[in-house]
Parts: sequence; structure tokens; C-alpha cells
Amino acid sequence: MAERFSSMYSVDSALAKVLQQRRQKLGALIESPVLLWSGRAPSKNFLANQYSFRASSHFLYFAGLPIQGAAICLHQGQVTLLMEDVPDSDALWHGVSPTRQQIAEQIGAIAHYPLSHFPDYRAAATIPVQDLWTRSQQSQVLGRSWQDATDLQGIDRDLAEALVQLRLVQDESAIAAIQEAATVTVRAHLAGIHQTHSAHTEAQVRAAMESVLLAENMTTAYTSIVTVQGEVLHNLYSHRKLQPGDLLLADVGAEHPLGWAADVTRTWPVSGQWSATQRAIYDVVLAAHDACIAAIAPGVEYAAVHLTAARVIAAGLVDLGILKGDPTTLVERGVHALFFPHGVGHLLGLDVHDMEDLGDLAGYAPGRTRSDRCGMQYLRLHRPLQVGMVVTIEPGFYQVPAILGAARQQAALEDCVNWERLATFEDVRGIRIEDDVWVTPKGPQVLTAALPTQADEIVQLMHSSPVG
Amino acid sequence: MAERFSSMYSVDSALAKVLQQRRQKLGALIESPVLLWSGRAPSKNFLANQYSFRASSHFLYFAGLPIQGAAICLHQGQVTLLMEDVPDSDALWHGVSPTRQQIAEQIGAIAHYPLSHFPDYRAAATIPVQDLWTRSQQSQVLGRSWQDATDLQGIDRDLAEALVQLRLVQDESAIAAIQEAATVTVRAHLAGIHQTHSAHTEAQVRAAMESVLLAENMTTAYTSIVTVQGEVLHNLYSHRKLQPGDLLLADVGAEHPLGWAADVTRTWPVSGQWSATQRAIYDVVLAAHDACIAAIAPGVEYAAVHLTAARVIAAGLVDLGILKGDPTTLVERGVHALFFPHGVGHLLGLDVHDMEDLGDLAGYAPGRTRSDRCGMQYLRLHRPLQVGMVVTIEPGFYQVPAILGAARQQAALEDCVNWERLATFEDVRGIRIEDDVWVTPKGPQVLTAALPTQADEIVQLMHSSPVG
Repeated sequence: MAERFSSMYSVDSALAKVLQQRRQKLGALIESPVLLWSGRAPSKNFLANQYSFRASSHFLYFAGLPIQGAAICLHQGQVTLLMEDVPDSDALWHGVSPTRQQIAEQIGAIAHYPLSHFPDYRAAATIPVQDLWTRSQQSQVLGRSWQDATDLQGIDRDLAEALVQLRLVQDESAIAAIQEAATVTVRAHLAGIHQTHSAHTEAQVRAAMESVLLAENMTTAYTSIVTVQGEVLHNLYSHRKLQPGDLLLADVGAEHPLGWAADVTRTWPVSGQWSATQRAIYDVVLAAHDACIAAIAPGVEYAAVHLTAARVIAAGLVDLGILKGDPTTLVERGVHALFFPHGVGHLLGLDVHDMEDLGDLAGYAPGRTRSDRCGMQYLRLHRPLQVGMVVTIEPGFYQVPAILGAARQQAALEDCVNWERLATFEDVRGIRIEDDVWVTPKGPQVLTAALPTQADEIVQLMHSSPVG
Repeated sequence: MAERFSSMYSVDSALAKVLQQRRQKLGALIESPVLLWSGRAPSKNFLANQYSFRASSHFLYFAGLPIQGAAICLHQGQVTLLMEDVPDSDALWHGVSPTRQQIAEQIGAIAHYPLSHFPDYRAAATIPVQDLWTRSQQSQVLGRSWQDATDLQGIDRDLAEALVQLRLVQDESAIAAIQEAATVTVRAHLAGIHQTHSAHTEAQVRAAMESVLLAENMTTAYTSIVTVQGEVLHNLYSHRKLQPGDLLLADVGAEHPLGWAADVTRTWPVSGQWSATQRAIYDVVLAAHDACIAAIAPGVEYAAVHLTAARVIAAGLVDLGILKGDPTTLVERGVHALFFPHGVGHLLGLDVHDMEDLGDLAGYAPGRTRSDRCGMQYLRLHRPLQVGMVVTIEPGFYQVPAILGAARQQAALEDCVNWERLATFEDVRGIRIEDDVWVTPKGPQVLTAALPTQADEIVQLMHSSPVG
């Protein structure tokens, strides 16, 4: 196992207070002891060649620091640290590590024990982590096993519900960390936009963007999408050459060193010039983006925000002659989903899709399940918005051959799609505009507002001098 | 599971021929069928947030392409592909994937089946992969389980020995790929050296280096070490500020898209000026580096190369007044290891520590085991060099507080270390110089020779204009 812990991390008094509050709130929600594991870094082809360590988000939320191979026991607002001491022989390879006692003091633990030697915790609730080595340790300690964390039972389910209740609403410390990640992400996008003139490949733009994160000791919160094939929603490869008529879609977000995520997408023309068709569709997507953000307020149903995006996109496509009919009816029939097949966004927090390890428990209010309705099945968030939530707003327009090919076969769509008109928009493969929005009592606060969204402003940035 | 496969990868006719040769050689070495799995990408906190996929090296060696969630059966020089077909619904998220049949044709498979529906392979040999989900599938298919791959039994051990015999000697295709990774790595180091003037933190230099790899669609072959605390051998964090008197040690290597690794270290002064003490020690390490490379030839024992480094370093430290006595005797007593505690290098290939998943089976000739001798216990390669091997040469000098603190307590070292003299070298915390060397019939060929090693040349690079 690589380094357990680095001196780059520390808990200051403000964070210590926040952690204490989170632990007390959990204690008020659940009576049984709670045991949360951090996990450990998976290995590539041999044990010592590890991926970078990413602690479990539930652990991070209460422990505050990414301590590898550790667990915490939370009970009645107090925390106990469980981890092996790092052997002295480790100092040659990894430097002098803090002792378990020092780490316990850092995170405000009232006691600390080796993991191998801890009290009887069979009555503790837990959430199974992704890393299977650690999950097997969880099974051994707790005497039960899990298929995954999306269908928990008994006290584990109680714990999951308590975690959702807490983590849905971000405290000030969380907002500050998300804002830090968002600020660096904005700089990464500016660097990518500037770099496009001198880049020949998607990979060169991606490198320019990710190097901004790396230079701040941040990492990517998810695998970056930097592609001229924006219609492939999760296009993870950036090997294509840039051509003058292409749109480049960049979905890149930073992860703060303590785990908090940003998630931002911009789309811009490789040449620095929008074609008339690209510009027209871009403005439709932007109108949807702006309408969604304007609609955000406490108490508003997120599904309504999604339907706002769908309606604005449908209306825009009617105006452009691509769709025919009444926008509201088109949305009811799911026709907008031919071009906007995904949900308008999701929860953002310690995970880029926050708490998605728990399935839809966080995203869907109790009693709600995924809809079969066209364009709604991929909606990741279906709750009334609450003060303190952070959500993404990310409408898009895509020409996905698999979707449009199948649609052309359907006689039912003949009356509402003008396929000949659509053919004139063939240089618009994929556009998405995504920002991160904090729900405050006064309404939406866009954490990524420093990054322009206007079509003109973006191409002006391409022509201006680069930023640090 | 994310994308199984990308159109960025393809097997050209030259690679097809190489793969055929590798399969035939394996068929000549082992009679039983061989089943090798590629593995799958591990997840961070929720299933869909995956690390980048890194296929098992043994799989890559014979399949040629990083196909996620696949297995190949090798028998008598022929290959069968085993993988599920990608569902059509995947096209929205990941684009149109090649079918199993298309992939089978790419890699030259004579047949292809779904993994869930394959013949009885209980008699097949395998190597357990790192990813535990896949390892459990291996267990189910083959009806046996493994602690890890470092202590295999029966036909699995036979297979491991055959793989070592093949993979110890790199074919032309492998050398070409390692050379590509090495060339990009050299450019990354040049970028890091140039960037140092304008950088304030280790992370900024690291970002400049890694962005060169990313821009070429390569990744890091291992977690980069970019640190002013070079005495911490595997220092994975780059959060420190650069100070004018610091040496910056950068150990960064590219991984070719098809898996082949480079592994390069340089050390340079942050200010662009060596202090007299830094320059003196640097030249000692460089003399060791040059002597080791000069010593490389087919038939030479790698341990002798290691001892060459030890002797040159001991002699240099005697000349500087830090050590006292005869260099050969100092090395016999292990005194050099106070400052050069690790081995002088290792095998390089598809893995940065090639075949380390098999423990010491690749690194150590049959019958040999790790020595207790001071300075030898971390030697990763203890074989006679063969034509076609690629090895690293990476001598170093480090002042590790844990080692030197313990040493000062030992009366036995009083006669051979001048602690007062050593104290004047306190601005030399860690220096390493590492290159990748191909053993040819004519002697060593340094694949990373384009990157200067001379102290003067390196600081001149810092003052010259940046390269692309």
C-alpha cells in the first residue's frame, strides 16, 4: 500500500468545527454506531502500481481527510479512528508518516485503535465501498455482505437515508470547497478555449485544461470529455484531429484535494467562428440553460426545471423549422428527447453525481422512481429543490445517429420533425452548456458564473491573449 | 462498465504479425490452453465514476489491444476471443462500439464467444489479475483461487515461467513502442525543466510535464514524483513551494496507448544554479550512471552493474571527504547504502517494473532470492543481461533522516563516515538520474539519450527558450 496520508492535508479549526457539527447531526439521526471505511487505492497491473487514492465520500464527509486504509466509528456525535500504524520501514519510501495518534488528533477522534484489533462492531451500520478488498474487510468485521450500495437493508438503509438527509444540503465549508473546485475549473476551460487555436487534436486541448487542475494539486472529478463528437455523450477518448468546421465540446471538472467536485461543460467552434447553424442551435441551448437557472428556487421541483429546458429547446427547434407543432405538446410526446435525451442535471457535492453509490436514494424523493416517459428516464434528480443543494444545469442538443436513425422509421414522428430542414444543421453534432448552481434562499447562485456562456463572448476569448 | 473499446485502437499488419509470433512462441513453451483476462476499470466512489482502464499486461502482450472486460484463450499458437457483446443501448453514451466479431478480426482470433457461454476451460492455465471483480470471474471459470500472482502453482506456474521467458526479451514492436513512450517522456522532462523558472510549486512543474503526455494521448506509466524532497523515494505529493536553494527531482514516465512504459528521472536546481555541494554530488551520481550504462552488455550480471554504481558512488564520496576508506571495502560493508539504499534499476516493458505482478520470478534468475546484504535487498533485477532486455539505470544519492539518524548511533560506522563533512552537504536532499537502456548485441542503447544528463547542459536548458 502506498502512502496512507500526506502532510499536505490538515484540519484547521474551522473544518474541525464543521466536522463536529456533521457528526452531531448524524448522531441525532441514527442511534446505532456507524462504521465508515475510506477504502484503498486500486492497483494497475501489479500491486505497487496504484491508481491515485480516492477516499469514500461518506468517510470524507465526516473524517474530513483522505486517510487511506482507515475506518471511523461514529456514535452519538463522537468519532473513533481505526487504522494500522504505518511501519517505520515505510519512511524510506514514503517519508515520515504521522502516527495514528497524530491523525486521530487532527480529525478530532476521541480514541484510536488498530483496525485488526477493534471492539465488536456487529451492530454498526455501514455503506459498502466500491473497492472490493475493503468491502471484504467490511463483510468480515460486520458479518454480512452486500451486492452493492444501491439496495441496502435494515440499519444500513437507515444510515443511507440519514446520509442523504445530511449530504443533500451543503454546509458553508462544502460550498467553499466546491467554489474552489469551480474556480479552478473555470480557469481550465479558459485555458482550453485559448489553446484551441494552436491545437491540432482534442488531446492537446484536454491536456491544456487538465494541466490547470494538476498545477493546483487538484485532479479531475470524472474522466474528461473533450471531443468533436459531442453527440457521443460519454466520449472518453480524445484522439481525433480538430477540423475547422468542428464544434469542440469540453466537459471537464476539478476535484478539490478534499474531494469536492465541479462539473462544467462548454462548446465552442474550433475555427473561432460559429457557422449560422451552429450559432442558431447554440443560442437555443443557451436559452434553455438560462431559463433553467432562472427557474431555480427553494421548493421548485427539479423535474419542472428539466421540463423547462425541454420546452425551451422544443420551442427553439420549432422556430428554426426543425420541429413542427406546439412546444408543450412536443415535450409531452417526448419529441424533444430526439435531440436532448438526457436529464438536465444532477446533484453535485463530494461526488460529481452526488451519492450515486446509493442508487436513486439521494436523487429521488421517497416514493418516486424513474419514469418511462421519453426524455425522463435519464433524469438523475427528481426532488423539490432545497436551500443548500448544489445542482448542475446542463441542457444540450445532439444528433445521435442511433436515435435519429430509429426515429426516421417512425411514422408517428412524420408530423413533427422536418427531416430536410434538420439535414441543413449537419454541422451541429453536439452542444452542451453546463454550470454548477447553489440553491440559496434568495435564488440561484451560479458557482461557475465567471466562465462566459454567450456565443460571442466565447469566441472573443479565443482571440484574446491567454491567461495564466 | 464504460467503453469496452475505442476506434482509436487498431492492429496494423505489422502488429498482427508480431502478435502471431508471440502466440506461436507461447504455444511452443506450454501445451495446455492459456486463458488471459484483460480486467476492468475500477470505480471511485460510485460505479460509473471509473478510473481509466488499464488492461492486464499479459493480456495486452498477446491481444495487442486494451479491450475491457475480455479474455483470450491461447492454444497452439491460435487465439479465441471471449467477451460479451456491447448492448445497442450503449451507443447513446459511448458511441457505436465495434462488435465482438469485428474485434476478433482485428486481433486475428480464430473464433469468438460470449464470456458467459464458453467451453470448459478448467484445464487452462491463467495469471490472476489485480482487479478483484475479474479475479472472482477467473475463479468461477477455472474452479480455483489465488492469493495473488506472486506464488503460483502447477500449470499457472508453468505459464508464469513461459511468460517470463518471452517477455524478458523485447521484440522490435515492443522496442518501437517503448521508444515512442521514451521520446514523449523526454519532451515532458524538457517542458518541466523549462517551466521551473515560472513555477512556484512542485505541482506546476508536474502539470507542465504531464500535459505533454496527455497531449499525445499517453498517460503516466506510474504516479509521477516531482518533489523538492527527493530523499523520500516514492513521494507522491507535489504540494510544496519551490525555494531558490532546492533541488527538484522529477521521476515521470509516459505509458504508450498500447501499454508500454518509459521511466525517467532528472534532478535540477530550482534557481537554475547548482551550489558547489549540489554540483559535486550530482557529478558523483552522474559518474555512477555513466559507468553503469558503459558496463551493460549481454551476459553481464545486472547485480554487477548495481555494484558498479555502488562503488563509483562510494569512491566519489571518499573523494569529497564524506566517506573514509577503500571504496570496494565500503561497498562490501554496505556503507554506500546509507546514501544509495535502493537497487540501480529494474526491467522495463509493458509494466514499469516489468512483470512485478509475478513477484521476483522475472527479476531473479531461477534459484536466486533477495539478499540480506545491505543495499542489495531492494535490488529488483538479479539476472545476467540478455540481448533484447530493456532495463532502467537509476543511481541516486539521498539523505534520508531515518537512515542517517540510525547510522549516527552505530559506533561501527565512526571510522568510515565524516559526519561533520557531510553536514556541509545539507542542501543535497535527493538526486537521481535515470535512463532506459536497451541491451543490444553491440552493447547498450539508451532510449532516452535525447535528454541531457550533464549538470551544465541541464541548467542551460532552463535558460533557453521553451520547446513545444
